[in-house]
Amino acid sequence: MKTRAAVAWEAKKTLEIEEIEIEKLKEGEVLLKVVASGVCHTDAFTLSGEDPEGVFPCILGHEGGCIVLECGPSVKNLKPGDHVIPLYIPECGNCKYCESSKTNLCQSIASTVWTGFMPDGTRRFSKNGKSIYHYMGCSTFSEYTVIPEIALAKINKEAPLEKVCLLGCGVTTGIGAVLNTAKVEPGSTVAVFGLGGIGLSVIQGAIMAKASRIIAIDVNPNKQQMAKFLGATDFINPLEINGSISEYIKEITNGGVDYSFECIGNIHVMRDALECTHLGWGVSTVIGVAGAGKEISTRPFNLVVGRTWKGTAFGGVKGRSQLPDYVNRYLSGEIELDSMITHKMPLEDINKAFELMHNGTSIRSVILF
Amino acid sequence: MKTRAAVAWEAKKTLEIEEIEIEKLKEGEVLLKVVASGVCHTDAFTLSGEDPEGVFPCILGHEGGCIVLECGPSVKNLKPGDHVIPLYIPECGNCKYCESSKTNLCQSIASTVWTGFMPDGTRRFSKNGKSIYHYMGCSTFSEYTVIPEIALAKINKEAPLEKVCLLGCGVTTGIGAVLNTAKVEPGSTVAVFGLGGIGLSVIQGAIMAKASRIIAIDVNPNKQQMAKFLGATDFINPLEINGSISEYIKEITNGGVDYSFECIGNIHVMRDALECTHLGWGVSTVIGVAGAGKEISTRPFNLVVGRTWKGTAFGGVKGRSQLPDYVNRYLSGEIELDSMITHKMPLEDINKAFELMHNGTSIRSVILF
Repeated sequence: MKTRAAVAWEAKKTLEIEEIEIEKLKEGEVLLKVVASGVCHTDAFTLSGEDPEGVFPCILGHEGGCIVLECGPSVKNLKPGDHVIPLYIPECGNCKYCESSKTNLCQSIASTVWTGFMPDGTRRFSKNGKSIYHYMGCSTFSEYTVIPEIALAKINKEAPLEKVCLLGCGVTTGIGAVLNTAKVEPGSTVAVFGLGGIGLSVIQGAIMAKASRIIAIDVNPNKQQMAKFLGATDFINPLEINGSISEYIKEITNGGVDYSFECIGNIHVMRDALECTHLGWGVSTVIGVAGAGKEISTRPFNLVVGRTWKGTAFGGVKGRSQLPDYVNRYLSGEIELDSMITHKMPLEDINKAFELMHNGTSIRSVILF
Repeated sequence: MKTRAAVAWEAKKTLEIEEIEIEKLKEGEVLLKVVASGVCHTDAFTLSGEDPEGVFPCILGHEGGCIVLECGPSVKNLKPGDHVIPLYIPECGNCKYCESSKTNLCQSIASTVWTGFMPDGTRRFSKNGKSIYHYMGCSTFSEYTVIPEIALAKINKEAPLEKVCLLGCGVTTGIGAVLNTAKVEPGSTVAVFGLGGIGLSVIQGAIMAKASRIIAIDVNPNKQQMAKFLGATDFINPLEINGSISEYIKEITNGGVDYSFECIGNIHVMRDALECTHLGWGVSTVIGVAGAGKEISTRPFNLVVGRTWKGTAFGGVKGRSQLPDYVNRYLSGEIELDSMITHKMPLEDINKAFELMHNGTSIRSVILF
């Protein structure tokens, strides 16, 4: 069949809206109508050429709200009409990762998801006979897409897909990092570095965890208002202080915060985030994705004195078993999405969404098909 | 009063046995007869001049087994004749660190302990009017020493001081790192880098935690026997394998170990120790103390995929409240110390203890006064 999609023909170029071919479904695959897709920094990161795993041409997009159109052979638990959120980390339910309560990183199809293929090692998208790569196993910048059943979370049909699509990446990552990875306790102090969609969601998570003080940090002063609206108690613009931000935070918190989160992908900020935590028990969680070849560093003494450095992907959330509950928590008012969506636009305007992100105007743009 | 002590007059020189003066006890201080003292790598590290906090002249030694001789004003819970182990991390019981269940790093007197002074900012040792620095708040390479009450763990008098002195540092650090810091679960796989007193104690801790596989790693092939005796299931000499030790360990463990421990103080090994752990849940604990200015590094992706990098000091053990139980666990046969003591000697031969350590002959030498 045919679909309209935004194709990234090569790195550093704008996307082109094209009519492309989708091949027939294979074993375990599902054809989806994409209703809405958020535009995330990770899409921009790959498009920038910095992503060592980026391959072109591809169809970007991984924050989707979709409806099942057709199920391929052996699909067991989905049927046409079901509402789903695509998962860039699948949940096969059978591997040692799925069986572990410590991780959400199902590896059943990792070798194909991260190289741009479907699980059988082939691709479903093409234009004039030229194959186009899949992206993060999702490729939601397309009116229709193909995703394996194990990478689809079936959700409550009452949830508006143009809102809960954000739970497919940023919001879940931020909230999950607080609740699942760092396990912030009531009364804790928290520092959040970088107030994009993920950082703002970390603030939400910290509120859900009943943190007593939430210090939001961004070089863009316009981020202050939204951070405070979501519950941040302090806002710091690192450009407005003298000296090291980690020393400054230690000063104003009497020794450092209990928990910190890096939501940018900047290795220097990752170090600051670790070093601003409290001696004895500080836990710093890396969420941002750094460029190829970049490395974090610190004096080992910073760990020996009781700090912990960890990281998280998709907030440690197991997609098929736990994401449906995030959707319900949105419906019950516990998770805020509406104010995160600052722009909506048709697929034709997708390059504008990237511009708005780059110049710091948008929190999230959502593409409506 | 007078005491015989091994004085480190300057870095990189052998110690000199001297008769020195000990001043009168001040508020909260206790005069101790040192019965035995282990010689630890940290003493050698400071003597080497690499320790950024090293100050000279000083009296090294921090693994003591002692008897209380006299109590200064305001000492509450000790009396002459009590058996004690000195603590380089005190436990005042009142600070926010002591009140936290997450750390053992009481900071009540940290500013003086780590600069070579008693809590009031003065020193008790001198020779011909020239003051001599204290070391780690202990200075156990002296027949008599002065230590504040809050840095003394009162222990069972049945325990032989020439054995349980080892619980003042290395053995407790290794076992505590496994049980308190990493919290190794039954059935886990463990890698231990460096088989000095601490690494061997990590093996003991891993046995106590019921680890299913314990991989011991050292460039000295002579360490294999003792590692196996204590319970290691595998021994790897990194000099005998091709390529990266972390890749090798991942290969033989089907993806990496659940827990790893760095017991050397080498920043490159710290990185290997992190990177040999399993994706999704691997936890690596830094125990070794690196040289001044050295930094650890890794790709942040190694954390984002679910690994945790942490560190520990004195194995996370709160000295006054938890160390007495370690002594009892030695008495009940649960902790092995006897085979760790490979050499015993009088204070006069202390420089030989450093030699035996440097050439890898000893596990622990104990000085008997």
